Amino acid sequence: MTVSRTTILASVRPWGLDSADLVIEGEAIAAVLPAGSGRPEGAEVIDGRGLLALPGLVNAHAHADKSWWGAPWVSYGGEATTQGRIAHERAERGALGIPSTASTERVLREFLRHGTTAVRSHVDVDLGVGLDGIAVLREASAALGDAVEVEVVAFPQDGVIRREGVLDLLDRAAREGAESIGGLDPCLIDRDPVAQLDGLFDIAARHGCGIDIHLHAGGDLGAFEYDLIVDRTRRAGLIGKVNIAHGFALGQLPPGRQQALLEDFAELGISWSTVAPIRSAPLPWVAMREGGVGIGLGTDGVRDLWSPYGDGDLLRVALDFARLHGVRYDEDFAQVARLATSAAAPYVHREVHDLVPGARADVVLLEAENVPDAIVRAPRRELVLAGGRVVARAGDVLV
Amino acid sequence: MTVSRTTILASVRPWGLDSADLVIEGEAIAAVLPAGSGRPEGAEVIDGRGLLALPGLVNAHAHADKSWWGAPWVSYGGEATTQGRIAHERAERGALGIPSTASTERVLREFLRHGTTAVRSHVDVDLGVGLDGIAVLREASAALGDAVEVEVVAFPQDGVIRREGVLDLLDRAAREGAESIGGLDPCLIDRDPVAQLDGLFDIAARHGCGIDIHLHAGGDLGAFEYDLIVDRTRRAGLIGKVNIAHGFALGQLPPGRQQALLEDFAELGISWSTVAPIRSAPLPWVAMREGGVGIGLGTDGVRDLWSPYGDGDLLRVALDFARLHGVRYDEDFAQVARLATSAAAPYVHREVHDLVPGARADVVLLEAENVPDAIVRAPRRELVLAGGRVVARAGDVLV
Repeated sequence: MTVSRTTILASVRPWGLDSADLVIEGEAIAAVLPAGSGRPEGAEVIDGRGLLALPGLVNAHAHADKSWWGAPWVSYGGEATTQGRIAHERAERGALGIPSTASTERVLREFLRHGTTAVRSHVDVDLGVGLDGIAVLREASAALGDAVEVEVVAFPQDGVIRREGVLDLLDRAAREGAESIGGLDPCLIDRDPVAQLDGLFDIAARHGCGIDIHLHAGGDLGAFEYDLIVDRTRRAGLIGKVNIAHGFALGQLPPGRQQALLEDFAELGISWSTVAPIRSAPLPWVAMREGGVGIGLGTDGVRDLWSPYGDGDLLRVALDFARLHGVRYDEDFAQVARLATSAAAPYVHREVHDLVPGARADVVLLEAENVPDAIVRAPRRELVLAGGRVVARAGDVLV
Repeated sequence: MTVSRTTILASVRPWGLDSADLVIEGEAIAAVLPAGSGRPEGAEVIDGRGLLALPGLVNAHAHADKSWWGAPWVSYGGEATTQGRIAHERAERGALGIPSTASTERVLREFLRHGTTAVRSHVDVDLGVGLDGIAVLREASAALGDAVEVEVVAFPQDGVIRREGVLDLLDRAAREGAESIGGLDPCLIDRDPVAQLDGLFDIAARHGCGIDIHLHAGGDLGAFEYDLIVDRTRRAGLIGKVNIAHGFALGQLPPGRQQALLEDFAELGISWSTVAPIRSAPLPWVAMREGGVGIGLGTDGVRDLWSPYGDGDLLRVALDFARLHGVRYDEDFAQVARLATSAAAPYVHREVHDLVPGARADVVLLEAENVPDAIVRAPRRELVLAGGRVVARAGDVLV
């Protein structure tokens, strides 16, 4: 039997609204009361100082297993193509000790410092490292007491069909509990879209796991891949189980084609994740919202052999998303904040992720006037709670 | 006679190189010595703790006169067109007390907090506020003891030819010492490019001031305006006196057309400034560098009636510039850092702006391993010196 302790996170402004006390029992929020309206005896009280409160940030697309964050600077090398980067990474990662629990933990701590308390991480699965990266990610999360909850996408970064044995690795990953298997550019990398997609859908259907597939192709080629995925999702009945990551083509397609695809996505529960790249075509995000097509925000890789960029701050990804989509009105900023938090619950298999009773007590406090102010400034995270525990304060991780 | 005091900024890594002591006499750097190699008696020593040192950041394109930074949040309104925003701003600014010395000082302090010690600010000049904004900017700078040095572009935000009397205002601004006069979209706003440009060049030629003109037009229309400006710069002999701000068309033009323009720009000393907008076409920045065409980086407006974005951090603009141009190699990051600092000297009329003897002692210290690390993380500014004075520490302004 667990003894449930009571904590009051007092005088915070959930979503920038009226001051409230969050009553936390053990790991979960038990009640949200007007500030000062009665505090149970013996409860620990944390002074929220009138700060803005948001739910913990959700990183819907990370690569926590392959960063050199915290190691000495690694000057960039390799060819500037997807295949060039794949090859460069496979050649160099061993010398950098990738994957390792230590480097993965450093990335998770950086996420936590910035208020992220749940992550869906793609983890490289290939003939070189096998499933080692998955074990490493779970160990790193456990080392932090699951302050950052992780879920795994077993990700065939080096290709699926073109590498004999990778489908077996994905099958094993799914059998051993990976929440999703990934895929990568069925046309551009494997050059055999039917074989890759049939292989992935077969595994997902047998194990009941999700599919979360990287698609970099633009324009008509990207749309062709979406069609193949829609078709297989419907046939396999994998409703609400498929996510498309990046999907640069969607923003490039004519409105009529976009709309037809969005209807399919909505019907089949196919969701989207984006890292809001600075030069990408904006998503039809208003139509996606109205049509019920989910959008998750992610950091992508942080300081890895693909790119030296990234600091693990999902709130800055939300800012980039807002800028990329020309957001200027308060209500749209609020929508962006929800994409980074409560609306991302399905990406980490939570029923509810919000500042409401029943949710895990993941809370981020910021010195901000309101939600738009928090997005456009992305100020320091003053306090981060994960599962009711204080895990970061004034930008420093405490666990 | 001024008594010159000596300060040693000890144990810093200029540009991430070997540890050095900066010997500062009064406002200027007198010497850069290997760390610990002899410190004059009686000198004040500031411990630089091995931090990375850069020259003060230079903001080559600001609008410091019209921000509501520090005031309660102003929800966005107005139409999402250039003309819509101009009209919205003119209707609402008075109620927000814009322009005022207090609000302008708040913006300058925010610049300073982030390590910017010199600013070229466009200042709205129109039939409503006349030249009040210029006086306000100079007062705000003086209130900070010129820690942030400002120079003025008298900016006809509401148009030139379409508003009878604006040319006279610009003429008066130039006569009274504005370093440059501005212009705005001669085609799209004034709809009379020859009249606007002839008017501006006439004033600049008579007063010897610069021209720094906002051009938003894309593609062929933008290129047409560049041609008109090249032609007039050559005829008026205003070599090194003309800057084009935004100039979105340049990145959109075919390489041959770009190259021909860059040759003209180089010959005439026409420079460029950009705020690295998230969806703009990348500039041909390598060709510009090789051809000797200057590029300055700016924050644009910060939280004003045009847009709620911006936090005044020029290092983050440098980061956006790097991302927009796909920078990945260390030497390119170093070039970007120079754009934000030493290479921007001409934008604020400095002969030299660097960590070298003779330069004003404007120094920013950051906890970063090297220059690329400083750009991609844009960490807190640990110490900022302006004219030899410590003006900010740990992200807080001290003046």
